[in-house]
Amino acid sequence: MTGATQDMPGAVETALRIAEGRSTALKELDACLERIDATEDDIGAWVALDRAGARDMAAALDARGTSGLLHGIPMAVKDIFAVKGMPWRCGSPIWKDRVATFDAGSVALARAAGAVLVGKTETTEFASYNPARTRNPHNPARTPGGSSSGSAAAVAAGMVPLAFGTQTSGSIIRPASYCGVVGFKPSFDLIEPGGVAPLARSLDTIGLFARSVADVALGVTALTGIDLAPEPATDRAEYPLDVSAAWDDAEPALRTAWAAFTDSLAPAGRQQNFPTELTAALRGAADLHGRIMDGESAEALAFEHATAPDLLSDKLRAHLEAGRALSGAERAADWAAMRRLRAMMDATLAPDAVWLTPAATGPAPAIESGTGSPAFNRIWTLLGLPCCTVPILRAEDGMPMGVQVVGAMGNDRGVLQMAHDLMARYGAAG
Amino acid sequence: MTGATQDMPGAVETALRIAEGRSTALKELDACLERIDATEDDIGAWVALDRAGARDMAAALDARGTSGLLHGIPMAVKDIFAVKGMPWRCGSPIWKDRVATFDAGSVALARAAGAVLVGKTETTEFASYNPARTRNPHNPARTPGGSSSGSAAAVAAGMVPLAFGTQTSGSIIRPASYCGVVGFKPSFDLIEPGGVAPLARSLDTIGLFARSVADVALGVTALTGIDLAPEPATDRAEYPLDVSAAWDDAEPALRTAWAAFTDSLAPAGRQQNFPTELTAALRGAADLHGRIMDGESAEALAFEHATAPDLLSDKLRAHLEAGRALSGAERAADWAAMRRLRAMMDATLAPDAVWLTPAATGPAPAIESGTGSPAFNRIWTLLGLPCCTVPILRAEDGMPMGVQVVGAMGNDRGVLQMAHDLMARYGAAG
Repeated sequence: MTGATQDMPGAVETALRIAEGRSTALKELDACLERIDATEDDIGAWVALDRAGARDMAAALDARGTSGLLHGIPMAVKDIFAVKGMPWRCGSPIWKDRVATFDAGSVALARAAGAVLVGKTETTEFASYNPARTRNPHNPARTPGGSSSGSAAAVAAGMVPLAFGTQTSGSIIRPASYCGVVGFKPSFDLIEPGGVAPLARSLDTIGLFARSVADVALGVTALTGIDLAPEPATDRAEYPLDVSAAWDDAEPALRTAWAAFTDSLAPAGRQQNFPTELTAALRGAADLHGRIMDGESAEALAFEHATAPDLLSDKLRAHLEAGRALSGAERAADWAAMRRLRAMMDATLAPDAVWLTPAATGPAPAIESGTGSPAFNRIWTLLGLPCCTVPILRAEDGMPMGVQVVGAMGNDRGVLQMAHDLMARYGAAG
Repeated sequence: MTGATQDMPGAVETALRIAEGRSTALKELDACLERIDATEDDIGAWVALDRAGARDMAAALDARGTSGLLHGIPMAVKDIFAVKGMPWRCGSPIWKDRVATFDAGSVALARAAGAVLVGKTETTEFASYNPARTRNPHNPARTPGGSSSGSAAAVAAGMVPLAFGTQTSGSIIRPASYCGVVGFKPSFDLIEPGGVAPLARSLDTIGLFARSVADVALGVTALTGIDLAPEPATDRAEYPLDVSAAWDDAEPALRTAWAAFTDSLAPAGRQQNFPTELTAALRGAADLHGRIMDGESAEALAFEHATAPDLLSDKLRAHLEAGRALSGAERAADWAAMRRLRAMMDATLAPDAVWLTPAATGPAPAIESGTGSPAFNRIWTLLGLPCCTVPILRAEDGMPMGVQVVGAMGNDRGVLQMAHDLMARYGAAG
C-alpha cells in the first residue's frame, strides 16, 4: 500500500471532529488534498480535481456551522455522475470535452447534506469493460477492479473517506474487494439514479465506498433518509453461507482464504443452508444477466453508437452489437424471467435474510488482464439485492479480498449490520 | 377541432407512401410543417421547431433510400427528452436556456430508425402539475391534459403522426383521452429511459401518441425490436371490464358514455370479473402511488430544489416538500408494498390478461382548472402495467373520451391487439 490510511479519518470520524470543533471542513479537505498530492501520481484515481471549488465549499460550510449528515465530509464522485461545473466524460473519448451543467440527483442530495465534492474519479468506458488507467493502491501492478476504479482506489489510498460508485454487474463489490475497502450496493433504486449516465436500466445501481461499514451507512442514510446506522457489533450464533453463485470460478487464493474463514466460524455457526430451490432456480442467471445487460446497454448507448462508433472500444462495441442482435422475443422472455426470479426470491427468502459469499473470484489480478471477473456479483445485481463487501480476507501475498454479505430485497439494514459485525470480529485487511 | 386530421397520414401510411415511392420524407415533413403553421397559433403545442434540421434530416433520408421502420416519419418529442441541439427546458424557467448536447437513448433509437425529429413539445413543469400553455385542439377552452400536453395536442391536430410522451401518473393516457388520440404507455421500462429528465424512478414510463393503434405499435416496435404490430381486427366473445380503480370519481358525461358503451357489448361479452382479491388489494394503491411519487420526485429534482426553489411552482414545491417530509421507514414500507402488489398481479393475472376501464374521469375540463384527474391511471402506473387508450367515446358536447385497455405485465402485445379490435369495432371519435 502506498503509505498508510490509518491516519486518515473515516466519514463518521470526520463529521464528529467537525461537529465537536476539533477540526473544520477546510482542514479535513486540505488533509485529503495533501494525501492526494502524495499518492495520485502512483495511483491515477482522478479524472479531475476541483481544489478551488471544494475549498470554497468547505469554507462556506465552516462559515455556516452544521448542515446535514455529511457536513464537511470530502467525497469523490465516479465520472459517470453529472456534477455541475465538472467534467462528465464517462471514461470515453466521446465525452472528453463535456462539462455537466447540473448535478445528478444523488450528488445534489450529498451536497445538500454537506458533502464536499472533491472531484471526479476514473471509470471504465461507460462503466463497462475497457479499463481505466487507475492502479491498485496495494500493488501498482494489479488492477483496482472496475468499473468504479477511481472511487475504490481513492478510498483505499486514504484520499477521501467516501466515494460514489455504481454497479451494473460487479462494479462496486469487486473493486472494493480488490482494493481492501468496504463497498455497498444497496437494494436496486434505493438511491436516486437520475443524472447518472445509464448502462443497463434494470441493473444500474448507485452505491458507496468507504473504509468502514458505519461510513457507508452514514452516506446512504444521508442520501435516502433511511436510518441504516449499525447497532454496536455483536458476535452471531449463525453465519449463513452460500458459495453456489460462482464457486467453480473461485481461484486457489480465494479457496484457501475462504476455507480458513469458514473454519474460524464456530461449527454451529456455519450454515450452507441457502434454499436449494433458489440455487437451482438461479442456474442460468449469470447468462440471463449478460443478455439483459447487452440488450439494455445497446439502447442506453444508442446515441454514442450511432454518432461515434469508432470512438467506442472494440469490446464494448461488440457487446452493443450482441445486444442489438437479440430478438425482441428473446428480450421479452428474459425480462419476464428476471421478474420471475425476483418474485421468487421475495417469496422464498425471509425479509431479514442475509448470507455470506465471496466478493470476487480471488485477489486483484494483473493490471494488464482487465478489471477481473464479476462472477460472484452479477446474479445479485440481476436480482436487485443489497450487497456489502468487507475486507477481511487476505491472499498469501498480502492482497486483500472481501467477504460479501447479500440480503433479501430491501434488507439493506440487515446486510450492513452483518457486515459491521464481521468487520468487528475479523478486523480490516485493508 | 381546428380543421380535420383525416387528410393527414398516420405513421404506417407515411412509411408506406415513402417506401412505395408515392411520396418522400421531405414532402411528408413539409405537409406537417404546413399543418403546424396553420394550427399552432391556436394550440401552442411546441416549445421549439427545428424546421431546417428536420428538412436536412428528411432530405438525407430521401437521398439514402430506406433505413429503419420509422423511415421518414415526422415525430415530436416531449420537452423532457434530450434531443441534441434542441432546447431541453422541461417546462421550467430553471432550464429556459438549456440546449441538449446529446440524444436521449429513445430519441437516438428513433433517429436511427429513420424518424424525422420535428421539434420539442410542451410539457407541464418537469412532467408534474403546473400546466403548459397548450390548448385542446377540439376546444381551445379545454385543457389537452398533461403532462405530455404538446405531444397529445400535436398528434390530435394532425401536426405530426407520432410523438413521444411519458407517464408517471396519468401523463400519456389522460391527455390522449382528452385530445381524442391513441396513447400507449408500455410496460414499465420497455422503452429505454436514459436521457429523459426523471420525476419518479419507480413510475416514469416512456410511451407514444398516434392516431391509430397500428401507428403506436410501429413506433414501439422500432424502439424495442419487439414485434407489436396488431393482427387484423376481430370481434371478441369477451370484453373484460373493470371500473373499480376510480369509479367514484367518474363524472356524469363518462357514466353516460360508459353505460352506452358497455350496453353495446353483447351481454355475454360483458364481464365484470376482474379478480376481486386484486380489487381489494388495490385499495389504497392510489395513495401509495402519490407518496412514492412525492418521495422520489423530491430526490429526482434535488438539484433544482436546492439551487432554484423560487423558480419552482408553489404546487410542485409543496409536493417535493411533502416527499422530503416522509420518513425513511415510510418510504421503505411503501416500496415494499409496491413490490408486493406487483408480484401479486404477476401471480394472479394470466399472462395474456387484458381488461377495459375508462381512460379518464370525463372529457377534458376547462383549461383554467389544471390538467385533469389521473384517478383512472395512477394505479396501473404504480403497477407498471401496459395501458393503451383508444378514442371511442364522446361526451354529449362532442368532446372525446378514451377507453383504456390495461394488461398483465409484459402483455403489451395483447393490450395493443384489444385496443386495435376496439378501434375497428367502434371507430375513432377523434
